[in-house]
Amino acid sequence: MSDTLPEMQYRFLGRTGLKVSVISLGSWLTYGGHVGNETALECMKVAYDAGINFFDTAEGYSGGQGEIVLGQAIKKFGWKQNDLVISTKLYWGKANSANPDKPLNNNGLSRKHIIEGMNLSLQRLDLPYVDIVFAHRPDRDTPMEEIVRAFNYLINNGKTFYWGTSEWSASEISDAWRIADRLGLIGPVVEQPQYNLLVRERVEKEYRWLYEAHGLGLTIWSPLKGGVLTGKYNDVSAPPEGSRLAESKDGYVQNLKKTVGDDTWQRQLDQVAALKPIAEGLGVSPAQLALAWVLKNPNISSMITGASRPQQVTDNIRALAVVELLTEEVVEKIEAALGNAPAVETRRF
Amino acid sequence: MSDTLPEMQYRFLGRTGLKVSVISLGSWLTYGGHVGNETALECMKVAYDAGINFFDTAEGYSGGQGEIVLGQAIKKFGWKQNDLVISTKLYWGKANSANPDKPLNNNGLSRKHIIEGMNLSLQRLDLPYVDIVFAHRPDRDTPMEEIVRAFNYLINNGKTFYWGTSEWSASEISDAWRIADRLGLIGPVVEQPQYNLLVRERVEKEYRWLYEAHGLGLTIWSPLKGGVLTGKYNDVSAPPEGSRLAESKDGYVQNLKKTVGDDTWQRQLDQVAALKPIAEGLGVSPAQLALAWVLKNPNISSMITGASRPQQVTDNIRALAVVELLTEEVVEKIEAALGNAPAVETRRF
Amino acid sequence: MSDTLPEMQYRFLGRTGLKVSVISLGSWLTYGGHVGNETALECMKVAYDAGINFFDTAEGYSGGQGEIVLGQAIKKFGWKQNDLVISTKLYWGKANSANPDKPLNNNGLSRKHIIEGMNLSLQRLDLPYVDIVFAHRPDRDTPMEEIVRAFNYLINNGKTFYWGTSEWSASEISDAWRIADRLGLIGPVVEQPQYNLLVRERVEKEYRWLYEAHGLGLTIWSPLKGGVLTGKYNDVSAPPEGSRLAESKDGYVQNLKKTVGDDTWQRQLDQVAALKPIAEGLGVSPAQLALAWVLKNPNISSMITGASRPQQVTDNIRALAVVELLTEEVVEKIEAALGNAPAVETRRF
Amino acid sequence: MSDTLPEMQYRFLGRTGLKVSVISLGSWLTYGGHVGNETALECMKVAYDAGINFFDTAEGYSGGQGEIVLGQAIKKFGWKQNDLVISTKLYWGKANSANPDKPLNNNGLSRKHIIEGMNLSLQRLDLPYVDIVFAHRPDRDTPMEEIVRAFNYLINNGKTFYWGTSEWSASEISDAWRIADRLGLIGPVVEQPQYNLLVRERVEKEYRWLYEAHGLGLTIWSPLKGGVLTGKYNDVSAPPEGSRLAESKDGYVQNLKKTVGDDTWQRQLDQVAALKPIAEGLGVSPAQLALAWVLKNPNISSMITGASRPQQVTDNIRALAVVELLTEEVVEKIEAALGNAPAVETRRF
Repeated sequence: MSDTLPEMQYRFLGRTGLKVSVISLGSWLTYGGHVGNETALECMKVAYDAGINFFDTAEGYSGGQGEIVLGQAIKKFGWKQNDLVISTKLYWGKANSANPDKPLNNNGLSRKHIIEGMNLSLQRLDLPYVDIVFAHRPDRDTPMEEIVRAFNYLINNGKTFYWGTSEWSASEISDAWRIADRLGLIGPVVEQPQYNLLVRERVEKEYRWLYEAHGLGLTIWSPLKGGVLTGKYNDVSAPPEGSRLAESKDGYVQNLKKTVGDDTWQRQLDQVAALKPIAEGLGVSPAQLALAWVLKNPNISSMITGASRPQQVTDNIRALAVVELLTEEVVEKIEAALGNAPAVETRRF
Repeated sequence: MSDTLPEMQYRFLGRTGLKVSVISLGSWLTYGGHVGNETALECMKVAYDAGINFFDTAEGYSGGQGEIVLGQAIKKFGWKQNDLVISTKLYWGKANSANPDKPLNNNGLSRKHIIEGMNLSLQRLDLPYVDIVFAHRPDRDTPMEEIVRAFNYLINNGKTFYWGTSEWSASEISDAWRIADRLGLIGPVVEQPQYNLLVRERVEKEYRWLYEAHGLGLTIWSPLKGGVLTGKYNDVSAPPEGSRLAESKDGYVQNLKKTVGDDTWQRQLDQVAALKPIAEGLGVSPAQLALAWVLKNPNISSMITGASRPQQVTDNIRALAVVELLTEEVVEKIEAALGNAPAVETRRF
Repeated sequence: MSDTLPEMQYRFLGRTGLKVSVISLGSWLTYGGHVGNETALECMKVAYDAGINFFDTAEGYSGGQGEIVLGQAIKKFGWKQNDLVISTKLYWGKANSANPDKPLNNNGLSRKHIIEGMNLSLQRLDLPYVDIVFAHRPDRDTPMEEIVRAFNYLINNGKTFYWGTSEWSASEISDAWRIADRLGLIGPVVEQPQYNLLVRERVEKEYRWLYEAHGLGLTIWSPLKGGVLTGKYNDVSAPPEGSRLAESKDGYVQNLKKTVGDDTWQRQLDQVAALKPIAEGLGVSPAQLALAWVLKNPNISSMITGASRPQQVTDNIRALAVVELLTEEVVEKIEAALGNAPAVETRRF
Repeated sequence: MSDTLPEMQYRFLGRTGLKVSVISLGSWLTYGGHVGNETALECMKVAYDAGINFFDTAEGYSGGQGEIVLGQAIKKFGWKQNDLVISTKLYWGKANSANPDKPLNNNGLSRKHIIEGMNLSLQRLDLPYVDIVFAHRPDRDTPMEEIVRAFNYLINNGKTFYWGTSEWSASEISDAWRIADRLGLIGPVVEQPQYNLLVRERVEKEYRWLYEAHGLGLTIWSPLKGGVLTGKYNDVSAPPEGSRLAESKDGYVQNLKKTVGDDTWQRQLDQVAALKPIAEGLGVSPAQLALAWVLKNPNISSMITGASRPQQVTDNIRALAVVELLTEEVVEKIEAALGNAPAVETRRF
């Protein structure tokens, strides 16, 4: 593969007028966390220089440190906000509280937390506004009307341009649109779900009718399934010391770790093993195959990637050149290797 | 078990003011079809006399014959429509066409078919109106606004009092509510999904947030999973001649038949076998256990049952007396035997 | 070309759930007019048997005779309305008046004429309703709100399922949607413009943004440009006696006739002449080339054709088999021969 | 012609309550561009002193320099904003970007660019608000609802009093009104199209029904068609060195230049030549005839003029005195010379 990086590509964020790089850089589990700040800033610089304009973070990432490091990068490198798309997420704001063990109104999607959390996020980012703010999870304890109204408050007050959801069910997204429509407010325009070769149900089946009919955009996370799709866990009996899976205190990783050794874990390792020869046949790494496969899906507005080293940023971007290798024939081989294509319902005619 | 039938119970149809018997009598696969008209009428008489007030049919059942027989019963027995709750369903109206192989606008949920189909159904029923009309399936080729407006046309013209859906996804139901809310129209108030000990995902997980927040009612079908839950297929190598599974031309049954012998089929027989001792321990039949288990779910407004003989009607009704036997302990045993409880997401607190 | 007719194809009428045959039969200038009733009925029978389900007429065609003949066909052949799509058009209702020279409120789109005209059309058709009613022209003397409300009155009273426009400008259609949106009413779903190889501006340029964003459907008229595209006027110095162009009193034909011999007329004959070798190269008639070219446009829901003899009906249907011959290369040749492709504006990216 | 300047006249901006001078001064291609700042300021002073209260600019004029010079004039001469009408336009904001070759979200009409672009424009103008902000072109990649909402955000936050469009089609303007009406928001009140003796279609035909029914105002640009109507290109074989046509890098001028020598260019020179004797007969210059002809159109709220020298400002203003010379007879002569009057559709009566 050539040393020159492929040119970055851009897509609209669903049916909005906002253009985002199809590969974006996230700060989950990395910046503000186990990756040192100098390295984090370096990664962001490499990303920006390669044409990535979309950077994603959250109030809940490393207790707010993810936002702080992103804000430092913008300041340090003199980036203009009109050249960037910055997103953050609200829901897990316990680090904002003096008593994180009893976060009370610092978590969830009450009007109080949406507005207070946004202000605290902007302080950490040292920015007057973000481009997109996500509801990091659904909150079944807060009425949908309160949630929709609070995000519209943020938009009307210039704190964000768009709002979205993360890991909401299709019917919850539809319900938010119902409230927005009834009240003449702005509904969510983008969802941030997990999506990768091993986790496909939501993106390919549950949300299926939301793309065409409503223009929902997707900024997906975990395209490598926490590293499982790189194949690095295939040759070891347990997550090696120092690996994120062995070390991270993050809830998602903790849950993933619990599955190590069980049936699901083994089935996934089998699937990854079956993909290996396909990647080899194309002359690419399993990781690049996995990333390119995500990029091929036209309903994905942007694929959020993580990187602990600048080299990983460029490795990820090289997946752009792999997309064209995924011919119909290759895609069929992948499906055969995985055996996990969701059964989708057809139309009347 | 006593010879006296338990007293019929009634529930509101979701959050409407309409009261329906918790057990209702459907005509799918039976009346107008393989059950002779005399027997059909007899079954309905027994049901009515036992307190069942809700009778369900569809334009697509036996090419409209299901509706015709139901209309005959009402006339023959001199029942008053104000004592009954009659529902029909629109979507598969090909029998209305001079060319059923090319039904064109006689199927689906276009405004044309909803209005024309309703009029033809009422002609067959020989009634001026029904109480509930269902969209028998979602129609992704017709805009939701056209669908919602057409059902409201039926309501506004006195052809039905309520409208509902059948086998729609939660997000499609939410989308119908969105349109209805925006236009000040009436949304669907009830969904008719399959629900039984072996098929639980939709009712227990996907629709979960629609009951409390929106008052969705359910009139469920196939509580015995086409007879599988009676255990009658457990002791035979193939569906016995004359059984519905062996004989019916119905698409659903044809699909079910295709599974005979495969992994899913075997898994279900195993589950049914595991339930058998629990039923025996309670001194009830496997079928009654299955029916009572459905009735115990408070989100079910009515359970639609089928019957080929009057005896089956009363057998089904006896399940009412079994509900109280399903203590917490018994329910736990059932869960252990099935191992198919959907993983449901919890609330914030 | 084989003797077997190609199988009829069906498309949705824009973004509605209504399916219409891509070729439809109109009664303009023909049925009720210069074509005898027996022949007219015969043509309709041939069309129906070939799978045409959509028949178009208007109150203004031959002083209402077009509607009368269509109604006779439905009755005579025992067609079911649920198997048909019937449209009529309101605007030129002077024949309804005792004093056609002073039609006053019998023309135009006042609430009075829309409702009265519809009732008179239904009387002539001897039908309880039509599927689509068109505003046959824009009426700048009647406020748009009055027009939109009156067509909704027809829908709400079961006289029609959908309404559309004919020869309205894009901004007039948008304005109707504006009123409908504001009042929660139903806007027009289909436009009936002239469209053929010689008249392309509206369909390809002016309406361009209405298809994708709003789902506007098109049922186009005059695909052969009044016969000009058959080439029959190319070899004569003047319209031959007995030809529609020589004889018809219809306003459109009168206007067309006025152009005979002028620059526009000559330019069109030159264009038709340039198309001739392309048709010959494909082994089809100029008329079939012209019809197939219209059918190839995916924004056309249905192409309304006329026929004076049953043979013309089948000739027109044979154009369905020609569509696949219109490869990209052939289409380019056609463009080169015509030199009339409208300059269309591109998107931002 | 007298040495005294005619008194400035004012018209309402369409159906708003805002009064604008019928002649306005624009900064396109001039201020911030090829005209030195001192001269620019002088021109503005002369304009202001002659009663011009309306000054038009755009973020895209000379990379923002047009706005900067206008802001300097207001400051230098101590003009009060309440005595002025200032407009700017958003769409081409690439100069705002650190990487103008890849402007991404700095162009177009996304919510992000409308809000960010407005703030950057106000910084360059050094003003807290403008009176009117225009969408400089339609953006078919951004949903109309996003566009309408973003301009309303600017209005609600005091950044502008009104919003308008430039070079939008009539149906796009109608669509913006549809959205605004549905959501209870403010629609565009003014369009800024090209209009002059040689380019008439949009203003006289396409927008025709928008004036009376909706009160659309027009602030037209290029009344002299880039100088062509002055006759200065009639006597030369090619645009003379130093002329704007020869020198400008502006896209519009580049496109105009490409036509030099072709059929359209020659046809226009012929039209200009035919107008010459009419101007001579009235004792005015061809330019003044052209300007007066625009001013005579009552649907024009204001005619935007350019000027490289103060003398041009006063020359333009003198056209006010020519309007009364354009009698019905003269107008007919002009029509005969041009032969380009759009065919407009008439009303029903």
